[in-house]
Amino acid sequence: MNVIRNILNSRSEKDGSFFSSIQRVIGFKPKNIKHYERAFIHRSLNKKDKEGNDLNYERLEFLGDAMLGSVIAAYLFNKVPGGNEGYLTKMRSKVVSRKHLNELGKDLYLIRFVESNIPSEQFGVNIHGNLFESLIGAIYLDRGYKYCEKFIQQRVIEPYVDIEQLEGKVISYKSLFIEWCQKAKKDFSYEVYEDTGKDEIKHFAVKLWVGENVVAKARATSKKKAEEKASKRAYYAFQRIIDKA
Amino acid sequence: MNVIRNILNSRSEKDGSFFSSIQRVIGFKPKNIKHYERAFIHRSLNKKDKEGNDLNYERLEFLGDAMLGSVIAAYLFNKVPGGNEGYLTKMRSKVVSRKHLNELGKDLYLIRFVESNIPSEQFGVNIHGNLFESLIGAIYLDRGYKYCEKFIQQRVIEPYVDIEQLEGKVISYKSLFIEWCQKAKKDFSYEVYEDTGKDEIKHFAVKLWVGENVVAKARATSKKKAEEKASKRAYYAFQRIIDKA
Repeated sequence: MNVIRNILNSRSEKDGSFFSSIQRVIGFKPKNIKHYERAFIHRSLNKKDKEGNDLNYERLEFLGDAMLGSVIAAYLFNKVPGGNEGYLTKMRSKVVSRKHLNELGKDLYLIRFVESNIPSEQFGVNIHGNLFESLIGAIYLDRGYKYCEKFIQQRVIEPYVDIEQLEGKVISYKSLFIEWCQKAKKDFSYEVYEDTGKDEIKHFAVKLWVGENVVAKARATSKKKAEEKASKRAYYAFQRIIDKA
Repeated sequence: MNVIRNILNSRSEKDGSFFSSIQRVIGFKPKNIKHYERAFIHRSLNKKDKEGNDLNYERLEFLGDAMLGSVIAAYLFNKVPGGNEGYLTKMRSKVVSRKHLNELGKDLYLIRFVESNIPSEQFGVNIHGNLFESLIGAIYLDRGYKYCEKFIQQRVIEPYVDIEQLEGKVISYKSLFIEWCQKAKKDFSYEVYEDTGKDEIKHFAVKLWVGENVVAKARATSKKKAEEKASKRAYYAFQRIIDKA
């Protein structure tokens, strides 16, 4: 049953709106959709190209992993001018950790595109991260390094990479923010609601109230993330006000 | 004495022709020479920038290593369409091995540019490879990914990366070629001579004679490499003739 469901799911994605779904995920128009199709072919299908080479996403994982590594390296190099080689290496391995990549792949719900003939329960825990890497590999083949950079900037760095959090200095902006409100004796509340909009992936939006005012808004794929994002925005906004005072 | 010699050497390089020496090494005009200067500042000088951050080549090593990794990954991906993820990973680690990078750095004689205040004997065995990486990092900062690709293509891939040799299928083209000559009962000889030309680095040229004809020529930084290169050229030239026959 699962097998059939997987095949049906992926077929309808392909026939209907694979192109536009991929476009929404990557944020720009694919030039050659073939690369993206390959990025979701599971080895269980045992597909081969004309030359008899394996046709699945595993080689693209290798490529995407390499591109991710160099884009993140350049980002950290510029972002932390005081960090030495050891620091940069450690920070990069945190950003590209298996756990982190799985989270990214899951948030983009990439598994919906997979073509396979085994049930999705048998995919293994790292499928999400693997698909995320293979998608980056496909972007590189389709549009080159610049577009990889753009995608990684939008999908990895902006929403997820927080130097202070990675360094372990700040565990949670939400707790930091709550602490600040309690000290300052301010009332606050997080107003959370589902806001999926045009996305296929479920999204949550949050308004962060302090007294009568909304001090920050945010949107993410889980309640927790949306709250954290809004807290971070509020934290930095207040930081600026305090710095100016 | 060594300390003074190092400082004098590097100073005269800087004042005189650092720019043009770097240009010869990288094969194009630097836009901002500062990046390349930094690529050769040894930590022993204890230099700092205006913000108090360490100013030496170690951060550039991190950056260059990442760029090298992704350029080689893309090269192998395209070059070996039948290689799976494990194969590609293994081949890449061979190309970017410490031993290999040291060889590359040594061939370009990068150590002549180093500014340090310890004697060069104390640099450690991996200095050549480290400088090679930091140079790639500087190219990335100065001219971006495309130029890194170009440099790595010219300086790493074309002269050094031979898939068959890396796979261990062909250990030496010279021995393969000699074997072929002996079987075919052909006289052959390697005519080697120094040919430094406009380069600052010592070069050797070789003519490979079979009977009355020069069947291949090559040029490299050691006799052994030049002979190997010429043998490889002759080998592939004959291969084509045999294939056509």
